[in-house]
Amino acid sequence: MDYTYAPGRNHLFVPGPVNIPDQVLRAMNRNNEDYRSPAIPALTKTLLEDVKKIFKTTSGTPFLIPTTGTGAWESALTNTLSPGDRIVSFIIGQFSLLWVDQQQRLGYNVDVVESEWGHGADLEVLASKLAADSAHTIKAICIVHNETATGVTNNLASVRKILDHYQHPALFLVDGVSSICALDFRMDEWGVDVALTGSQKALSLPTGMGIVCASPKAIEASQTAKSVRVFFDWKDYLKFYKMGTYWPYTPSIQLLYGLKAALDLIFEEGLDNVIARHARLGTATRLAVEAWGLKNCTAKEEWFSDTVTAVVVPPYIDSSEVVRRGWKRYNLSLGLGLNKVAGKVFRIGHLGHVNDLQLLGCLAGVEMILKDVGYPVKLGSGVAAACAYLQNNIPMIPSRI
Amino acid sequence: MDYTYAPGRNHLFVPGPVNIPDQVLRAMNRNNEDYRSPAIPALTKTLLEDVKKIFKTTSGTPFLIPTTGTGAWESALTNTLSPGDRIVSFIIGQFSLLWVDQQQRLGYNVDVVESEWGHGADLEVLASKLAADSAHTIKAICIVHNETATGVTNNLASVRKILDHYQHPALFLVDGVSSICALDFRMDEWGVDVALTGSQKALSLPTGMGIVCASPKAIEASQTAKSVRVFFDWKDYLKFYKMGTYWPYTPSIQLLYGLKAALDLIFEEGLDNVIARHARLGTATRLAVEAWGLKNCTAKEEWFSDTVTAVVVPPYIDSSEVVRRGWKRYNLSLGLGLNKVAGKVFRIGHLGHVNDLQLLGCLAGVEMILKDVGYPVKLGSGVAAACAYLQNNIPMIPSRI
Amino acid sequence: MDYTYAPGRNHLFVPGPVNIPDQVLRAMNRNNEDYRSPAIPALTKTLLEDVKKIFKTTSGTPFLIPTTGTGAWESALTNTLSPGDRIVSFIIGQFSLLWVDQQQRLGYNVDVVESEWGHGADLEVLASKLAADSAHTIKAICIVHNETATGVTNNLASVRKILDHYQHPALFLVDGVSSICALDFRMDEWGVDVALTGSQKALSLPTGMGIVCASPKAIEASQTAKSVRVFFDWKDYLKFYKMGTYWPYTPSIQLLYGLKAALDLIFEEGLDNVIARHARLGTATRLAVEAWGLKNCTAKEEWFSDTVTAVVVPPYIDSSEVVRRGWKRYNLSLGLGLNKVAGKVFRIGHLGHVNDLQLLGCLAGVEMILKDVGYPVKLGSGVAAACAYLQNNIPMIPSRI
Amino acid sequence: MDYTYAPGRNHLFVPGPVNIPDQVLRAMNRNNEDYRSPAIPALTKTLLEDVKKIFKTTSGTPFLIPTTGTGAWESALTNTLSPGDRIVSFIIGQFSLLWVDQQQRLGYNVDVVESEWGHGADLEVLASKLAADSAHTIKAICIVHNETATGVTNNLASVRKILDHYQHPALFLVDGVSSICALDFRMDEWGVDVALTGSQKALSLPTGMGIVCASPKAIEASQTAKSVRVFFDWKDYLKFYKMGTYWPYTPSIQLLYGLKAALDLIFEEGLDNVIARHARLGTATRLAVEAWGLKNCTAKEEWFSDTVTAVVVPPYIDSSEVVRRGWKRYNLSLGLGLNKVAGKVFRIGHLGHVNDLQLLGCLAGVEMILKDVGYPVKLGSGVAAACAYLQNNIPMIPSRI
Repeated sequence: MDYTYAPGRNHLFVPGPVNIPDQVLRAMNRNNEDYRSPAIPALTKTLLEDVKKIFKTTSGTPFLIPTTGTGAWESALTNTLSPGDRIVSFIIGQFSLLWVDQQQRLGYNVDVVESEWGHGADLEVLASKLAADSAHTIKAICIVHNETATGVTNNLASVRKILDHYQHPALFLVDGVSSICALDFRMDEWGVDVALTGSQKALSLPTGMGIVCASPKAIEASQTAKSVRVFFDWKDYLKFYKMGTYWPYTPSIQLLYGLKAALDLIFEEGLDNVIARHARLGTATRLAVEAWGLKNCTAKEEWFSDTVTAVVVPPYIDSSEVVRRGWKRYNLSLGLGLNKVAGKVFRIGHLGHVNDLQLLGCLAGVEMILKDVGYPVKLGSGVAAACAYLQNNIPMIPSRI
Repeated sequence: MDYTYAPGRNHLFVPGPVNIPDQVLRAMNRNNEDYRSPAIPALTKTLLEDVKKIFKTTSGTPFLIPTTGTGAWESALTNTLSPGDRIVSFIIGQFSLLWVDQQQRLGYNVDVVESEWGHGADLEVLASKLAADSAHTIKAICIVHNETATGVTNNLASVRKILDHYQHPALFLVDGVSSICALDFRMDEWGVDVALTGSQKALSLPTGMGIVCASPKAIEASQTAKSVRVFFDWKDYLKFYKMGTYWPYTPSIQLLYGLKAALDLIFEEGLDNVIARHARLGTATRLAVEAWGLKNCTAKEEWFSDTVTAVVVPPYIDSSEVVRRGWKRYNLSLGLGLNKVAGKVFRIGHLGHVNDLQLLGCLAGVEMILKDVGYPVKLGSGVAAACAYLQNNIPMIPSRI
Repeated sequence: MDYTYAPGRNHLFVPGPVNIPDQVLRAMNRNNEDYRSPAIPALTKTLLEDVKKIFKTTSGTPFLIPTTGTGAWESALTNTLSPGDRIVSFIIGQFSLLWVDQQQRLGYNVDVVESEWGHGADLEVLASKLAADSAHTIKAICIVHNETATGVTNNLASVRKILDHYQHPALFLVDGVSSICALDFRMDEWGVDVALTGSQKALSLPTGMGIVCASPKAIEASQTAKSVRVFFDWKDYLKFYKMGTYWPYTPSIQLLYGLKAALDLIFEEGLDNVIARHARLGTATRLAVEAWGLKNCTAKEEWFSDTVTAVVVPPYIDSSEVVRRGWKRYNLSLGLGLNKVAGKVFRIGHLGHVNDLQLLGCLAGVEMILKDVGYPVKLGSGVAAACAYLQNNIPMIPSRI
Repeated sequence: MDYTYAPGRNHLFVPGPVNIPDQVLRAMNRNNEDYRSPAIPALTKTLLEDVKKIFKTTSGTPFLIPTTGTGAWESALTNTLSPGDRIVSFIIGQFSLLWVDQQQRLGYNVDVVESEWGHGADLEVLASKLAADSAHTIKAICIVHNETATGVTNNLASVRKILDHYQHPALFLVDGVSSICALDFRMDEWGVDVALTGSQKALSLPTGMGIVCASPKAIEASQTAKSVRVFFDWKDYLKFYKMGTYWPYTPSIQLLYGLKAALDLIFEEGLDNVIARHARLGTATRLAVEAWGLKNCTAKEEWFSDTVTAVVVPPYIDSSEVVRRGWKRYNLSLGLGLNKVAGKVFRIGHLGHVNDLQLLGCLAGVEMILKDVGYPVKLGSGVAAACAYLQNNIPMIPSRI
């Protein structure tokens, strides 16, 4: 089963699934339990309270759904919309593209706003669409907070401002898969109606739990939304919440205990410190890319992502070869370029349970790979640039002072 | 997190989630991995081949979906049917009832055949419906192989015979959640078109993987089925199967390695030996129930289930109290009576990774509970009856002879 | 590596190593750490305080030695005695015999007091020896609290009384390997000078830690004891205790965290409740043996052991065959008869992290084995006898009321 | 229990205990077992055969002793020597010093040959002593293969040559604690009589198993050696080897399975490839140290150690502060300077289950620490030097080509 064995630790720098803390692995290393015993509802109750904190919401209702990010998308859409509903959605990379594909297949009338890959969502187009929609035919705005394929972070506060400016009642649905628990996200303050993430991203768990949080307005919308749904129906959850047994169907006992451990670690570090750590690692990575003389796929600083950096390789290099070589020679896992940027970018994921020295090992590896594939990098240059910044910015570890 | 600590091992006898073998826990005790590396597709390819064996199919196409049994149901239905399609479905207990509820919510025209709880599906009614349907308006027959709420096993071979007798082309969809890997199940021989199970049942894994297997006819049906679906759409899987990368979205790395280990154990024991073990444990349990002077919820021997036994308590006893007492005093987890049989039955799950002495410990515990709640059981009687049978029927452990 | 696979859980009823709680397995499932970081000394400090509680001592000094019970014996002896010292030691079974063998090989002048196997230490002989020793030539009394080979518990309070009666200054050295954390043991009250146990016994950890506790008098003796020792020398530990770094050589990081978890569980249950649970399981086992019509190897009730029961088989049965059959057919691990009682007794260990239903599963298994090997046992009889007692005596689980 | 939590992985670069492969952690994540069942002897038999390969011996007899390196030392000495025996032993650092201390306390007449710390053993003095010893009063030569405190590797082949040159029959006892499985070691070829290591070093296991291997000549010596021993006595092992039950006392079940997994990984990589990897990591580390403008504690290239590098800091810096800062700010664990070199050197352990990118992360961390403590390092310089070498020398991963 370990037929791809290599000595030492695998350096996992894909933007998900990410490294799992040992504390979480330990918490999950357990037999099944009866989920109808008093223990699991008690645990679930705690989790539902705790999970709201990572969305920065007090009024939201969270759902822990045994699914992936794709399923969480479907849950967000089908509980709040009806077939034929007009929605505005942005394509800025592969994952926003896939979400739009899902929206279309689910039968919505999707008003697609495309940007060049590497750019953020075009909010001016949004503004003009809202301005023109005094009849409020637009039922929802769907936007990816952080596009994992290009390393672009959209400005959600601006979306809210535009909605407010036009006093538009459209629902505000956010894919926070590669942002929540890593980037600044404020559900209540930004008036987000549905936000969602997956367990295998910044929460640093295995895949398998889609975490969806719905505002009161979204919950209300779910009462009239006509999209067909059963497995993803919030109604079943809400019925079991009321009964205090919480689960309409069997949850993963292991993921529940794992989520508890993951949240405990995040709260021990402090959510804002976690976000600051991601900002630091993102900056360090970008400084390295610059030192290598390579271009960031992200077109402007305002869209820089602190969870994933897509690095553009020169035209004479195939970025897939960078990824392959990382795997074959350095036990380093990097992200491929997808779709429009296939062969053109490789991606460094720097989210979840990861620290500075791990990142520096990765950056050193990337330098050697670049040399391997024929790019004339100055070895050590990226690490030096990152270190110069990090040495001034890494805080002391609070528990060890 | 372990605030319900009790000394010694929890005796887990709910009919799912069930005990996980240590070998499987070990295989799952691992960090995440890049699912786009060459390792995971290679593992997946093996799994897809291996998993067909537990369905006893060579022509079927399996899907390992990050979901629960409820999601697997939805996948089976939405990929093969269109809204308004007429289907025949049986209610014989809580889980078949929930499946019918799902079928109705998904917009099918469900021709429901109800039986008294404790009875099997009424196949004479099925025969008469098929006889009357020369126009072939019935698109599918949906049936639960083993009703977990009442401990009733339906006769699938008979369903096939009836379909064949009337040369009816309806799809044959089977919920094998509490049967596959434990009861005799023959997808190809019985002409089942979609069969499904969940990882937390007889496969003895954590919850989180819905395993669906589709016949060529079902795959063909999926090309025209109009039920709206995205997350559960087989088309996306088939596209990635063809590319050799296998996954339209992120799988649980841990469940993949866990499934490999679980299947390895099943094949090491021998699938038919696994089924024989379940038959033995089922018989032993029923002998104990008889010795206690209690009634099996299952009305006739032909429907006896070898994975779960629902025990009827006398009217002066609340079966929920039996379950509560097991939890509070004996660290024994039994299944509650659900819906129509709430308070009237408790359930002993004897499926998955469990052996004779574990079951005997459970039976001894049930005897003490029965005495606790006021039923005049003769202590030791059920264990004696079970032992008398088991001592004649337990085989030597092949690896230890 | 699991070439002796059998379905379901192995029923581990040897008197050590015993079942490890899942909480402890989780705590131990971890990478190595630098034992010179501030974390490990802080953890060790806590452990040394906590471990005193299981000896019921406040004045003792504990040592956590990377060794087995045999090494712990050697540590107890070599730190307190000099070659040629006269000591009184009792042989009542295989383990006390081995300790005497060690004492002789270490060069002490051992005054051996032998009893028939199945009997306790002959304390009248001890009294007469002490009475005759007004010159105080006897430097130490060495006694096994619980002889694991025969299931005999010696009366340590009586030993202290006799020593006090003769105002004899001999050191009082106790092997508590199969007693401490399971039987009533009171180091301070009984004036024990060195007590010891091994991690794999009632503490329910893996093998590898010998836990030795020394009274102030024993520590004083160690300053003049001339037995050659280095690895087992307390002096090195005491030096590092003083420095606050605690470890003269590398400890097992995993066993340290495991010990913390094990002690936490014992304190959560309550040490006296743990002891009461062992008394209950011991009684239940003896009632079953009686119901089977078999003899307990332990000759008198005053010596009955609550951690292990040695069952005498009729002369026409080979007790090794009982053990072999448990392994080969029932996945049940029982203890062999050793040395003088080889072939004559098999042993049921009922110590450590084990509960009532586990024991009842074991007893049911033993019944079937007995029938297998030709003993005309009435199936269910032992379980019935045990249940009749247990159903009246098992307390509710405090955390679940 | 994790009160020193820090985000991301701890970077463990002390020269033991070292990082444990996940495969080994998984193998060890298991309940106890009866060590008298047929399974454990079968496993042990395999282990004893396999373990000989890491010593490169076919004629040696291995012992897997539940102890640490210190205990393994004691086992090597007490089984082959008698009190008063004259032995030649070398002090070149803290661990060789501690071994000499043990030798003296065990009562041998130790002819100590001291070198300046940072230098290897003075083999010329050895030659002169042997030359003068035509009476063969010297019974053994005791030498540390790799002194962990100073990063000095002694030349064992030369020791053998000198012994042969003088046709001296002295036993050749080798501490291979930080060498075996990492440095080139050839028991049979070099005529080593006792070699030993500890599980927590290059084998990458938890602490707790002392692995000792004895030549036929050493086994013969053990039959007449008069040093008092019981726990460490090979005789007891040999007796149980003959019986085929292998264990005179309870082994750690977990360490046995862990050792199997560890050896499997080493053989999968290939022992010589493992040694080559250590050579590569050692070279890379030394190149970094040079680039930083710092001195290696090891005085000459011939003594360079490929498992640990002791780095000398300038006099105005306290090397303990380097270690403290690694822990407090970078989650990096480095080795302290010990005894004579306390405050003067810090140590980078690069042995066991570790790869190039992990080391580069460590080196980047050391650079930042050096800057933190006031040494004017050029950030990136060491990493650049190491990368320049590594990029030319890292092989492709065989399993992934």
